[in-house]
Amino acid sequence: MDLKESYTNVRFRSLKIMECLEIEDYVPQAIDFVSPPKWNLGHTTWFFEEFILSQFKPGYKKFHPVYDYLFNSYYNEKGDRVARTNRGALSRPTVKEVIAYRKAIDSVMQEFISEDIPNECKQLIILGIHHEQQHQELFFTDLKYTWSLNPLYPGYSEIAFVEDIEVQKIDWINVDEGIYTIGHQGEGFCFDNELGSHKVFLQDFSIRDNLVTNAEFIEFILDYGYKNYIFWHEEGWAWINQNQMEMPMYWIVQDNEYFQYTLAGLKKINPNHILTHISYYEAYAFAEWKNCKLPTEFEWEVASDRLSWGDRWEWTSSSYLPYPGFTKNMAAGEYNGKFMVNQQVLRGSSVVTPAGHSRKTYRNFFHPQIGYQFNGIRLVKK
Amino acid sequence: MDLKESYTNVRFRSLKIMECLEIEDYVPQAIDFVSPPKWNLGHTTWFFEEFILSQFKPGYKKFHPVYDYLFNSYYNEKGDRVARTNRGALSRPTVKEVIAYRKAIDSVMQEFISEDIPNECKQLIILGIHHEQQHQELFFTDLKYTWSLNPLYPGYSEIAFVEDIEVQKIDWINVDEGIYTIGHQGEGFCFDNELGSHKVFLQDFSIRDNLVTNAEFIEFILDYGYKNYIFWHEEGWAWINQNQMEMPMYWIVQDNEYFQYTLAGLKKINPNHILTHISYYEAYAFAEWKNCKLPTEFEWEVASDRLSWGDRWEWTSSSYLPYPGFTKNMAAGEYNGKFMVNQQVLRGSSVVTPAGHSRKTYRNFFHPQIGYQFNGIRLVKK
Amino acid sequence: MDLKESYTNVRFRSLKIMECLEIEDYVPQAIDFVSPPKWNLGHTTWFFEEFILSQFKPGYKKFHPVYDYLFNSYYNEKGDRVARTNRGALSRPTVKEVIAYRKAIDSVMQEFISEDIPNECKQLIILGIHHEQQHQELFFTDLKYTWSLNPLYPGYSEIAFVEDIEVQKIDWINVDEGIYTIGHQGEGFCFDNELGSHKVFLQDFSIRDNLVTNAEFIEFILDYGYKNYIFWHEEGWAWINQNQMEMPMYWIVQDNEYFQYTLAGLKKINPNHILTHISYYEAYAFAEWKNCKLPTEFEWEVASDRLSWGDRWEWTSSSYLPYPGFTKNMAAGEYNGKFMVNQQVLRGSSVVTPAGHSRKTYRNFFHPQIGYQFNGIRLVKK
Amino acid sequence: MDLKESYTNVRFRSLKIMECLEIEDYVPQAIDFVSPPKWNLGHTTWFFEEFILSQFKPGYKKFHPVYDYLFNSYYNEKGDRVARTNRGALSRPTVKEVIAYRKAIDSVMQEFISEDIPNECKQLIILGIHHEQQHQELFFTDLKYTWSLNPLYPGYSEIAFVEDIEVQKIDWINVDEGIYTIGHQGEGFCFDNELGSHKVFLQDFSIRDNLVTNAEFIEFILDYGYKNYIFWHEEGWAWINQNQMEMPMYWIVQDNEYFQYTLAGLKKINPNHILTHISYYEAYAFAEWKNCKLPTEFEWEVASDRLSWGDRWEWTSSSYLPYPGFTKNMAAGEYNGKFMVNQQVLRGSSVVTPAGHSRKTYRNFFHPQIGYQFNGIRLVKK
Repeated sequence: MDLKESYTNVRFRSLKIMECLEIEDYVPQAIDFVSPPKWNLGHTTWFFEEFILSQFKPGYKKFHPVYDYLFNSYYNEKGDRVARTNRGALSRPTVKEVIAYRKAIDSVMQEFISEDIPNECKQLIILGIHHEQQHQELFFTDLKYTWSLNPLYPGYSEIAFVEDIEVQKIDWINVDEGIYTIGHQGEGFCFDNELGSHKVFLQDFSIRDNLVTNAEFIEFILDYGYKNYIFWHEEGWAWINQNQMEMPMYWIVQDNEYFQYTLAGLKKINPNHILTHISYYEAYAFAEWKNCKLPTEFEWEVASDRLSWGDRWEWTSSSYLPYPGFTKNMAAGEYNGKFMVNQQVLRGSSVVTPAGHSRKTYRNFFHPQIGYQFNGIRLVKK
Repeated sequence: MDLKESYTNVRFRSLKIMECLEIEDYVPQAIDFVSPPKWNLGHTTWFFEEFILSQFKPGYKKFHPVYDYLFNSYYNEKGDRVARTNRGALSRPTVKEVIAYRKAIDSVMQEFISEDIPNECKQLIILGIHHEQQHQELFFTDLKYTWSLNPLYPGYSEIAFVEDIEVQKIDWINVDEGIYTIGHQGEGFCFDNELGSHKVFLQDFSIRDNLVTNAEFIEFILDYGYKNYIFWHEEGWAWINQNQMEMPMYWIVQDNEYFQYTLAGLKKINPNHILTHISYYEAYAFAEWKNCKLPTEFEWEVASDRLSWGDRWEWTSSSYLPYPGFTKNMAAGEYNGKFMVNQQVLRGSSVVTPAGHSRKTYRNFFHPQIGYQFNGIRLVKK
Repeated sequence: MDLKESYTNVRFRSLKIMECLEIEDYVPQAIDFVSPPKWNLGHTTWFFEEFILSQFKPGYKKFHPVYDYLFNSYYNEKGDRVARTNRGALSRPTVKEVIAYRKAIDSVMQEFISEDIPNECKQLIILGIHHEQQHQELFFTDLKYTWSLNPLYPGYSEIAFVEDIEVQKIDWINVDEGIYTIGHQGEGFCFDNELGSHKVFLQDFSIRDNLVTNAEFIEFILDYGYKNYIFWHEEGWAWINQNQMEMPMYWIVQDNEYFQYTLAGLKKINPNHILTHISYYEAYAFAEWKNCKLPTEFEWEVASDRLSWGDRWEWTSSSYLPYPGFTKNMAAGEYNGKFMVNQQVLRGSSVVTPAGHSRKTYRNFFHPQIGYQFNGIRLVKK
Repeated sequence: MDLKESYTNVRFRSLKIMECLEIEDYVPQAIDFVSPPKWNLGHTTWFFEEFILSQFKPGYKKFHPVYDYLFNSYYNEKGDRVARTNRGALSRPTVKEVIAYRKAIDSVMQEFISEDIPNECKQLIILGIHHEQQHQELFFTDLKYTWSLNPLYPGYSEIAFVEDIEVQKIDWINVDEGIYTIGHQGEGFCFDNELGSHKVFLQDFSIRDNLVTNAEFIEFILDYGYKNYIFWHEEGWAWINQNQMEMPMYWIVQDNEYFQYTLAGLKKINPNHILTHISYYEAYAFAEWKNCKLPTEFEWEVASDRLSWGDRWEWTSSSYLPYPGFTKNMAAGEYNGKFMVNQQVLRGSSVVTPAGHSRKTYRNFFHPQIGYQFNGIRLVKK
């Protein structure tokens, strides 16, 4: 598929997945770390306007003088921006206006993309496409977060995807001690944090083929897992106590039964399904209770060819750190490096990851208390 | 005008004043103390459903099981409610659905209102009408607050009202020492906090006929009024320093000139216009600087027949306290009494107060840091 | 008693009442609004050095270049000061050094005080004496607060005073409607906030001769007074819920009985004793529950000659506001005026008020949530 | 040296290093993460009482019923404890009483320690000795923090130690690629987090023999290092801006020169001395600016035999994570494992580390914003 086609497809899909929303749904920002769908649409467009058209198209004039300020996310180099916590306060531009902005940029971009553009520019367009895919995934997780707070428990219907994944049978896979190569190799796209292919020495380990199920986690709850400090990090223990957590986010108890909010509305927990929306603190505590541990990101990557994965982002025990030889991407230099502190790596992908956006070297990362992604737990034997 | 007609008029106006909004404008809650227009429409409707239909119409069935929870503001007696800070997170019900809710309740109410309903119920309907008028005023002040944060500075056009009021000439009015009667008397509607008509003794005083102008306040700013603790309450001083305030909210400096955000967009300050959007802390500091003081609410009420008022809510030096003999309204008992601590009384009314909603005994009240109402300053000689 | 003698007596007493402390007790600041005893001793000394010696004694040289910074409380005019919340972090100067500072200043002051000093200076010395008496009272309330947090429940023994006051019999006193004169008159000392003697008109009222007892308040607790929003201000209700209050501060339940921390250690509650350490929010809620109200400060002052008072500071329903004609004391201009917002007036005095420091026109003031003073409740019939 | 002698020596030293303090210095807790010297003395004593005497000495009776509550630090298993932020509020027990507590426990311990005690108990005593050494180091860093806030800048004199270390000449050391063994091996004491000796594969690297000097860091400052986001982690950038940091903590500018607070008082910065009191955020930013990086903890350990170290704890780029095979110490199980999230590893030791308390496998750890330890920067070439 050529670049123009990739561009067009990704841009089309962002609108497509939001098609079933009401206008009102595009506006709220329920908490600082989620974004309004409207902002999402504007920001992914701004990325192309700012990094491609403004830099590479001679004489390009900005679509709107204030959109820079409105739709920059965290790029310090690109100047001031609306505070991340204030995005939900902005009713204007309207959805219609944002879509007009998208269409205008798309139309310039489609004309602009050609064989003749410099390679650096091509790489940035590809980065922009993957960036937009990340925001498509965030759209679903953000929407789920926002709607979960609404006592009407709205349902999403446009694109059929299934949150529910059944585990058939639990298996363990053994990997031998040895020197392994980690990191992206070869031609395809990857983010800067996957580069710096390098060797690591691993001891032999035994990793579970299947993610943890709701049934297993309910056992943890019923065994007072949330009440026993012995399983928890000090900060995890403080966090669950401060937030009075007794079960995963999105779970509620009604009539003595566990329910969870899903994008198809409130549903009874199916014990055989994969557990999801779990923080690192909970994943760690569960593993401790089970007398297991979480895989390192290296163990995960080495074993990945033999694992079933793709249903859930999986917490690893690895902190998010640069690979040897890591240098910041010069063109969009703030992309990954500056987040490499206080976060944990997740590997795999989830039911809301766009097709073509996952690979075994992909390094996702979140703070340890974040469970609003479709996160799950994979175990390694101690 | 009979009760049914009053009801219909007020209900119609709430929709009318929001008619020019975009759907997106109905959703955001920019700060805890403002409400989304959508919530405003739902809440004023809920008031009639909860206090009239549920209590007085035999066999009445609630329109929706969750709306109670969504649209209760602060009535503890009426059960749980969505946290005041979370109203902007709710995209559903949609504007359309809220309007359908309004229409359904209106249709039942219009059938229900008749000569035969008990007097207590009539009084509550009248209270509901005035309650809705309060929310019409809040709609404008809330909208102004939210839009002021938007770098696009949207403008409001539907109903022509003018924020700008020119002062022609400054006059002082003298009032003699004596015993005066304070509080509502006679037949018309008033809130419970105006009842308890009682005598007060006032010393003679001299009160200004005109509110303070922008020109006068600019003089205060240029004389380092915001930099000199001597004029300020200790808490006011802490507040302006913490918030780095150097001029009234909604004012900005561009190219060395003062501008202010108005509901007609960003406009250059006109020195001859009345100053507005001023906190009590600033009003007090200004009065100190001017070697004057603010009127007590009693001085204001006694002088009111001889004053020009109605353009701006006016800060008084009186704290919001019960009149002698104050007892809580039994039917809607949480209406006023429970706010009688830590707030200051404002008298008068403003350009966004609905016609027929003001009277000289009206006691408005806000916390001392609140300037987002159309507040102004009237002086009394020391 | 002449001025020098008054000065000497007051200064002596400050050291006397702290004599029984351990060195360690002089250091901690358990919460922002209490002060370490060591700071208390330094600050009252600084008052004389700064307002008297530096201003009136020609050629006076400061005792120590940094003490200004360390011992200024809130006087903006007197320059920068150590943050109010950091006083407990300072182990130096030591107690010994602070006492040396006191002695040095006392020795200069004693020489300096004479008939010849200007009247303005005399007035400031008298103010300083009363200021130090205020800090003597604060010493006891601060110490009680700090020690109440210590599971060892230390006891204070030096000066015998009795917190426990028994109520014999409940009486009501009637006061007639009329015009009364309020505020300080005559020769003796008063603070600036008592000046501006003026007339008020009062309706007739009936006021209780005795303060509320522990038994009465236990009845309120057992009647679910802390669980029923109907009695509370909105802000009081939020406050008790946030702090999970179910009884007055300093009370605890042990073996199903109420105990309270006193300066004589932990003691069983005596039902016939006067209730103390009550916030305004609780005082108001209790009065509501009792179908009574709190007196205004004017009612209190008018009735005071016929009341038993002096055992406890008594919350009034009056906010702390300037009297007509109030102007700031020029010499120590920040003394009272800048606190006249968001606080409630208390009248009377308490068991820890120094002899000679109380009078019927005295206006004490605290924020409504403050209960760490020896506060009590007096009722007026509704 | 036998166990009893080691015990006696360590216990003696804790008192010895505090000998020069004034009583007042034992009390304050200037911020949540530092402890009062008095608490330090009590807590290290409680460790022996709780983990040794209460568990291994038949019939042992606690010294005081409340000391458990007062002197437990973070051991959930050992029950409730005084909030970590409240330690500075407790004036009692006095220093004298705490020393009496120490002496009482020491006397029982000295009698109790013998050849006959079980090995598990011996191991715990050794742990207690190392635990006390850690607190001896913390004593110095805590005291420096507290005193740095005091405008009197107190000086410490008892034990001569020199904060100032001069760098003579900058050298780089090359280490070859290969498989290396990491972690503690052999007989001597180590903490549980050093166990689990295991192999790692390292690429070749070049590491600096000398720590970064003040001169180098001043160059960074003068090159606008604190003003350029490009060098910083996102969270580091937010942190320095929020705290308005423009130089290391303990540095101030006076008369256009850099000074720093040291335990010998305020001193002019010597450019040739080793930089200290640097957060991880600053260390990282400095390395970025220098186009270098920080060593991983594995690189550090492998190179350590060829490096000059021991003057400063050195930030590594490694997050604090368990080694393969890590299991919690059962007897004092909360010692290390529960802190293994959101912290960075430091290697080496500092001028305030007790003799005999350092080794090349030692893993110290702190949150990335913490600079109050004697931290320094070592560089690795990119």
